[in-house]
Amino acid sequence: MAPGSSLISDRARAKLEAAQVARLGTLDATQGPHLVPICFVFDGSLFYTAIDRKPKRVQVDHLARLKHIHSSPQVALLVDEYNDDWNQLWYVLARGKAELISDSVERGHALELLRKKYHQYRSGMLADDAPVVRITPQRINTWGDI
Amino acid sequence: MAPGSSLISDRARAKLEAAQVARLGTLDATQGPHLVPICFVFDGSLFYTAIDRKPKRVQVDHLARLKHIHSSPQVALLVDEYNDDWNQLWYVLARGKAELISDSVERGHALELLRKKYHQYRSGMLADDAPVVRITPQRINTWGDI
Repeated sequence: MAPGSSLISDRARAKLEAAQVARLGTLDATQGPHLVPICFVFDGSLFYTAIDRKPKRVQVDHLARLKHIHSSPQVALLVDEYNDDWNQLWYVLARGKAELISDSVERGHALELLRKKYHQYRSGMLADDAPVVRITPQRINTWGDI
Repeated sequence: MAPGSSLISDRARAKLEAAQVARLGTLDATQGPHLVPICFVFDGSLFYTAIDRKPKRVQVDHLARLKHIHSSPQVALLVDEYNDDWNQLWYVLARGKAELISDSVERGHALELLRKKYHQYRSGMLADDAPVVRITPQRINTWGDI
């Protein structure tokens, strides 16, 4: 399906909107898989995630996820929730292309959505000049109770 | 560090032993990243995960994760826990090689560990002939409150 079309059900969309954390899979410098938990928003067709002010080991421009995305834009984003009742397990897996946003209007829109979702971002954990990554899903798979 | 050596701190090991879910990153048929939540055990040096009786879309031998591991054994395993208090966030990222276990003694050992950890596995959700995957970490990174 083309980006922008309705890739998922209303229920899956509600789960994505409520989820506070996703796991982002990228390819590292050796083309092996690399994972990191991220905060994110889903606006119904696109995912956005920012390089925020949580402590990082290295400077922003050296952050692994940005390097990986630059050299290998193909990414996977997994949203799921563990439950001791395995009948309630579910996940949403989105695969697509990630890109660092250069357009200031789109970046501002994404920062606004992120601050609306996370109180930590409204309280100073997200700089106005934070790098923001857009993930355009090409394929979304769902599994389980969703 | 060589597999079998102490790759992580006692605190990180305790987190890995307590965690009920991990996210497994593999490479799909197009060599792009693919993610799935998994149940697992960590025995101090190796990770084990089984193809269990949770509903799957396809037959066991067609399961995406087994196909991916067979063609691209390099995997990443992420264990983390979201917390609204971002000072308490942490993760453990293990990268290494995954392999379907063929040795029946090692497979039996892994099944025993999995049944000890998960009551669902003690209650019939794990067949005696379940395929078990061993993940041998080559590199383990930790971040945050750990």
